[in-house]
Amino acid sequence: MASWNANKNTQNSTRQIVNPDLDIERKTASFSVERLTNILDGGAEKTQMRRTVEAMIQSDPVFSLENQYFMSQNERYEDAVRKSVHLSKMAAKMGWATGGPELAYCHRVLSANLAFNVHVVFVKSLMGLATDEQLAKWLPLAEKFYIVGTYAQTELGHGTYLRGLETTATFDAATQEFVLNTPSISAMKWWPGDLGRTATHAVVFAQLYLNGKSYGMHPFMVQIRSLRDHSLEPGVTAGDIGPKMSFENVDNGFLLLKNVRIPRENMLAKFSQVLPDGRYMKKGSAQINYLTMIVVRVLMLQNEVVPNLMKACTIAIRYSTVRRQSELKPGDREAKILDYQTQQQKLLPQLATAYAFYFVAKYLRDFFDRGYMETKEGKFDLLPELHALAAGIKVIATDYCSAGVEICRKACGGHGYSLLSGLPSLFTRQVAGCTYEGENTVLLLQTSRFLIKCLGMAQSGQPLPSSVAYLTSESFGKCQAQEKRDFLNPDVYTEAYRHRAFRVARNAAVKLQGLVQQGMAQHDAWNRCSVQLAQAAMAHSQYIVVEKFVKALETFGKEAAIQRVLKHLCDLYALHGIFSDLGDFVQDGYLSTKQAEMVTESYLDLLAVVRKDAVPLVDAFDFSDANLNSALGCYDGQAYQRLYEWAKKSPTNHQDNRIFETYLKPLFRNALSKL
Amino acid sequence: MASWNANKNTQNSTRQIVNPDLDIERKTASFSVERLTNILDGGAEKTQMRRTVEAMIQSDPVFSLENQYFMSQNERYEDAVRKSVHLSKMAAKMGWATGGPELAYCHRVLSANLAFNVHVVFVKSLMGLATDEQLAKWLPLAEKFYIVGTYAQTELGHGTYLRGLETTATFDAATQEFVLNTPSISAMKWWPGDLGRTATHAVVFAQLYLNGKSYGMHPFMVQIRSLRDHSLEPGVTAGDIGPKMSFENVDNGFLLLKNVRIPRENMLAKFSQVLPDGRYMKKGSAQINYLTMIVVRVLMLQNEVVPNLMKACTIAIRYSTVRRQSELKPGDREAKILDYQTQQQKLLPQLATAYAFYFVAKYLRDFFDRGYMETKEGKFDLLPELHALAAGIKVIATDYCSAGVEICRKACGGHGYSLLSGLPSLFTRQVAGCTYEGENTVLLLQTSRFLIKCLGMAQSGQPLPSSVAYLTSESFGKCQAQEKRDFLNPDVYTEAYRHRAFRVARNAAVKLQGLVQQGMAQHDAWNRCSVQLAQAAMAHSQYIVVEKFVKALETFGKEAAIQRVLKHLCDLYALHGIFSDLGDFVQDGYLSTKQAEMVTESYLDLLAVVRKDAVPLVDAFDFSDANLNSALGCYDGQAYQRLYEWAKKSPTNHQDNRIFETYLKPLFRNALSKL
Ligand SMILES: Cc1cc2nc3c(=O)[nH]c(=O)nc-3n(C[C@H](O)[C@H](O)[C@H](O)COP(=O)(O)OP(=O)(O)OC[C@H]3O[C@@H](n4cnc5c(N)ncnc54)[C@H](O)[C@@H]3O)c2cc1C
Ligand SMILES: Cc1cc2nc3c(=O)[nH]c(=O)nc-3n(C[C@H](O)[C@H](O)[C@H](O)COP(=O)(O)OP(=O)(O)OC[C@H]3O[C@@H](n4cnc5c(N)ncnc54)[C@H](O)[C@@H]3O)c2cc1C
Repeated sequence: MASWNANKNTQNSTRQIVNPDLDIERKTASFSVERLTNILDGGAEKTQMRRTVEAMIQSDPVFSLENQYFMSQNERYEDAVRKSVHLSKMAAKMGWATGGPELAYCHRVLSANLAFNVHVVFVKSLMGLATDEQLAKWLPLAEKFYIVGTYAQTELGHGTYLRGLETTATFDAATQEFVLNTPSISAMKWWPGDLGRTATHAVVFAQLYLNGKSYGMHPFMVQIRSLRDHSLEPGVTAGDIGPKMSFENVDNGFLLLKNVRIPRENMLAKFSQVLPDGRYMKKGSAQINYLTMIVVRVLMLQNEVVPNLMKACTIAIRYSTVRRQSELKPGDREAKILDYQTQQQKLLPQLATAYAFYFVAKYLRDFFDRGYMETKEGKFDLLPELHALAAGIKVIATDYCSAGVEICRKACGGHGYSLLSGLPSLFTRQVAGCTYEGENTVLLLQTSRFLIKCLGMAQSGQPLPSSVAYLTSESFGKCQAQEKRDFLNPDVYTEAYRHRAFRVARNAAVKLQGLVQQGMAQHDAWNRCSVQLAQAAMAHSQYIVVEKFVKALETFGKEAAIQRVLKHLCDLYALHGIFSDLGDFVQDGYLSTKQAEMVTESYLDLLAVVRKDAVPLVDAFDFSDANLNSALGCYDGQAYQRLYEWAKKSPTNHQDNRIFETYLKPLFRNALSKL
Repeated sequence: MASWNANKNTQNSTRQIVNPDLDIERKTASFSVERLTNILDGGAEKTQMRRTVEAMIQSDPVFSLENQYFMSQNERYEDAVRKSVHLSKMAAKMGWATGGPELAYCHRVLSANLAFNVHVVFVKSLMGLATDEQLAKWLPLAEKFYIVGTYAQTELGHGTYLRGLETTATFDAATQEFVLNTPSISAMKWWPGDLGRTATHAVVFAQLYLNGKSYGMHPFMVQIRSLRDHSLEPGVTAGDIGPKMSFENVDNGFLLLKNVRIPRENMLAKFSQVLPDGRYMKKGSAQINYLTMIVVRVLMLQNEVVPNLMKACTIAIRYSTVRRQSELKPGDREAKILDYQTQQQKLLPQLATAYAFYFVAKYLRDFFDRGYMETKEGKFDLLPELHALAAGIKVIATDYCSAGVEICRKACGGHGYSLLSGLPSLFTRQVAGCTYEGENTVLLLQTSRFLIKCLGMAQSGQPLPSSVAYLTSESFGKCQAQEKRDFLNPDVYTEAYRHRAFRVARNAAVKLQGLVQQGMAQHDAWNRCSVQLAQAAMAHSQYIVVEKFVKALETFGKEAAIQRVLKHLCDLYALHGIFSDLGDFVQDGYLSTKQAEMVTESYLDLLAVVRKDAVPLVDAFDFSDANLNSALGCYDGQAYQRLYEWAKKSPTNHQDNRIFETYLKPLFRNALSKL
């Protein structure tokens, strides 16, 4: 074997010699990578703490991700349970609090490899839906994993439309129990995580029936498996729904209930209660409940969606500086593929997108915290705006960030198709976010309902919430840019996005109104406008992202180098968006033909500028090799060595020759005499 | 268990009661489904023959796809070998010829589940590269699978850039042998299919060295495994490259050669030869060789890319008529999701895309046949045009059809994320086509090189090949449409596409010329224009697709109903393209603001029209349930029953309770005293 094969111990080791093609990229950084890392972490101490926790995780063999790409669904699940139980022990030993920063750092490294995922939602739903008394009973058990719970809402026949859920809970006053049933196949619970093989308990959403009358959806605490031997409780049928596009670590499950009886006390009763005599009683405002949905979406962006795109960018951009392919200049050494404009056009907008959504998620989190404080004081004014914003931004974040991961994957050519690159699984996982926590189209239509309402308010002179204040505009203006560098002025492009959002929303509203005035029923008219209404919600959310990125830049006034490089990314994000949806901006003449050409040139020029800092900008995300778990994307850029070392470990290389003996030998022996 | 669970034997059975929500869709078809199926098959007799062959395959348990979604990479490979060997026996027994229609029908049903995939390319490359003498020796063995071969071109370090391949073949006149070597890690062959665990032989591409001088890439026949016991030949290291995003049935492999000696006769010598004394001799024209590359791309579209999108449409559209979700009209029964405009906007353009690429692939096949005949007569004039066309259309077909499959998948909501839907694996397989047989960006740049050359020829008054004749245009016109229905005139939209293609190509050329005139080196200028050059190739290929679809419509003059429904699809394809890339059409004022609104309205109106025939249009593809292998998409529309039946079979539901005993019990017992 040649000498390049000497170093066998390459997986996840960062003590390698760095590939000079990657090394040189770091020498020319225009800013301090460490400083940017600190900013992303929220301070130097936090970077320090994160690294300490990550080092602990990575030095513990139970948490190793080695061989993960070789495992079956079943092995991944088992491995996840093992890791989760180990982590809970570690947390107890270290005194890490549930919801504290240390565990968040652990999740940053392990998120795709832990079990009890929906247990977290189960706990959150208890906190949102249970009375203090109920909480006192269940919460301590759940927090220590003495019980594991699932959130059983979706059914085979209903996910989006909650009012259509069919599971029933009928009160039996004689025994003071609820009787739960799955009246049809489509009523079977389907998808809840941790339900398939793990959960002992479930928060089951069911139609409440009292004396034959339906009272709508309510949450019930149902024990589904024995704590003693894990057997299913009487009347319960449950299991795993089988293989998925990803999420092998999670046992999504099904659940059938046949006359399952639970005590009256098991209806989660913060907002409504059934009295012993079967009377129904509402308590407080269920509006607060919205907050749970919103916070789950915000956390999902911060903890999953944005980091996944960051990882994909890290892998693809590093690899694109060590991959050399084709002659750019005839006779020269082959070029780094990142030096091709087409490659920059694939990857650099994704890098900008990762930063953009980092900042907008942070903004959303702050906004949420404000909303949360206000509701605690009994003020609910911010809720509709917050809900519309979080829904719209969840949609474009999951849409763009999953498309972005896939662009990164494809940009690595053939090797991006190998699971060992780490990219396929980042994509197949990421893309699920377009469906769960609210299917994207459905969410867009919710946001657009809010926009249409606001347009109506504007017409009648009512004041609008700040994020939609632009809807009070009177008419369409024109872009003021004179030359291509004007498009690097945030005011210019923010205005363009605002204008687009306004135009698309107003046109949809006008069309809607027109159809209704022509006599079409409101619901038909709505449906006939829904493609454009969804576009309005997209355009609005896009505007917010750009505006918040620009706002974020202002906070770095004291750090010129950081501000400059982030400004490039902000410009790139904004101009790439205009370049990609050019029709939206030129259609009504807002941009002239000349301006459309300028913005294109300005965008293409930016690619070359951002390219220079591309590697430092991904280094700043500070993902360890172990965390990336990619043969292509490690810090040292030794992509080929790692691909080879890892491939050799594949189980497909460690099989007996049964296949040959059984199927091939009888064929091949016919050639023996002829060769 | 409730009564809806009575029928257990549902997998792949079409003798089910059809879901009335699906049934009714078929009752209102505006055309004869059977007639359209016949057209797609190329005649009623062919439909008949295809169904006979498919029935044979489907009645043979060895060919069953049941449980496929539960298999590991290794099991999929073993299953594929088993199926392939069985199929070769069946073919021999039935007297089905290699390359005949019966085997093509078998592949339609089994393509993702057979082994020896690249063996086919190996055989084709022999036919293209070997002398008659060599053919006489190898072909009979290969055709009967007495040897299995792979096509070993790509290396760890080089795929796109063939001239950069590093494997060497040095002639040793003393022994009349070539000595093959892998001089560095990046020179290792990587990716070839069938190489990892199966192949006995390989066509290896290597740099030929004669007396220390390099003669460039040449093909060599190398035996890599023993026919007797399948052990690796001396000097050969080979194995499987491990798990991929899909293609578990194929053993893509790596190959290292260390002083591997092969006889002089093993250089495939149709186009050049090494004489015993080490002299090099060129023979004939290697241009014909292009044809192999082109035909592989055309066949890939016809046999894989288009059928995969057709399958995805079948699954998603059928499911969208049995899935009811949310109230469209308040108080009414929940609506079929296909009745939402946003859902139509997702799925129906994909249906139109499947038909569009069906027709353009057919056109390309005919064009290829013409080119092939001409080259046989020594005429090579068509080759550059054919190459540019096939490359460009390969790109947009793989791009659009893979994106289309993913749109179909997402449009099925949560259930589309289950492997049992059949959709995830259709996507993960389909998308590989954007990378293999020429990475898409690289191919686009090849097509654009042709376009730029043609623009130059036009300037100097030379005649252009027919597909690019429009490049001789003098100036930009304006769209003539007066009202929205004018956009249903094929002349109007074909002209719009032609105009766009012309403008984008010319602008790129002007920019390129400008940069060079400013003193920039040609290669730098090319790179600086490459995003726009790639756009020009896209725009050109898009124009061809629309034009060929329109042309195809003309052949159905005698069948009004068929012609009408295909015309709707053609309109939809064309208008969806304009709607999606509106900027390209309005940027220079070709479409006015008013016309942009008209085309949008015209497009949205069409959705409702095509929706009516959506189910008959996918039924016409005539995929059997066994072939679709989808719990969501079967002919009978019993999606929920099948999901449940199939999920129960998942191996995750048949594990012992080791996980509970080891990890969970110690936790749960702490709750026992408290509950
Ligand atoms: C990985 C994963 C994990 C999950 N985990 C859980 C869990 O732990 N607990 C749980 O309860 N659930 C879970 N789910 C289920 C998830 O919440 C639902 O799948 C999701 O809410 C989407 O709903 P759906 O599947 O009903 O989609 P559908 O609503 O059926 O969507 C299908 C199509 O119909 C369209 N559509 C539907 N309604 C409308 C409308 N009114 N207007 C226009 N178009 C419409 C959609 O846009 C979409 O294109 C999970 C799902 C996944 C994929
Ligand atoms: C499933 C699968 C099966 C395969 N089977 C075989 C097989 O049987 N036999 C075989 O020999 N090979 C096989 N291959 C390899 C395949 O042919 C190559 O992966 C493919 O040709 C792409 O080349 P690459 O991997 O070198 O990509 P790269 O060229 O490395 O592409 C990476 C990026 O660089 C960019 N880039 C590269 N060059 C340029 C340029 N000049 N200008 C601008 N951008 C550029 C690309 O656009 C891309 O974004 C297979 C690959 C796959 C995924």
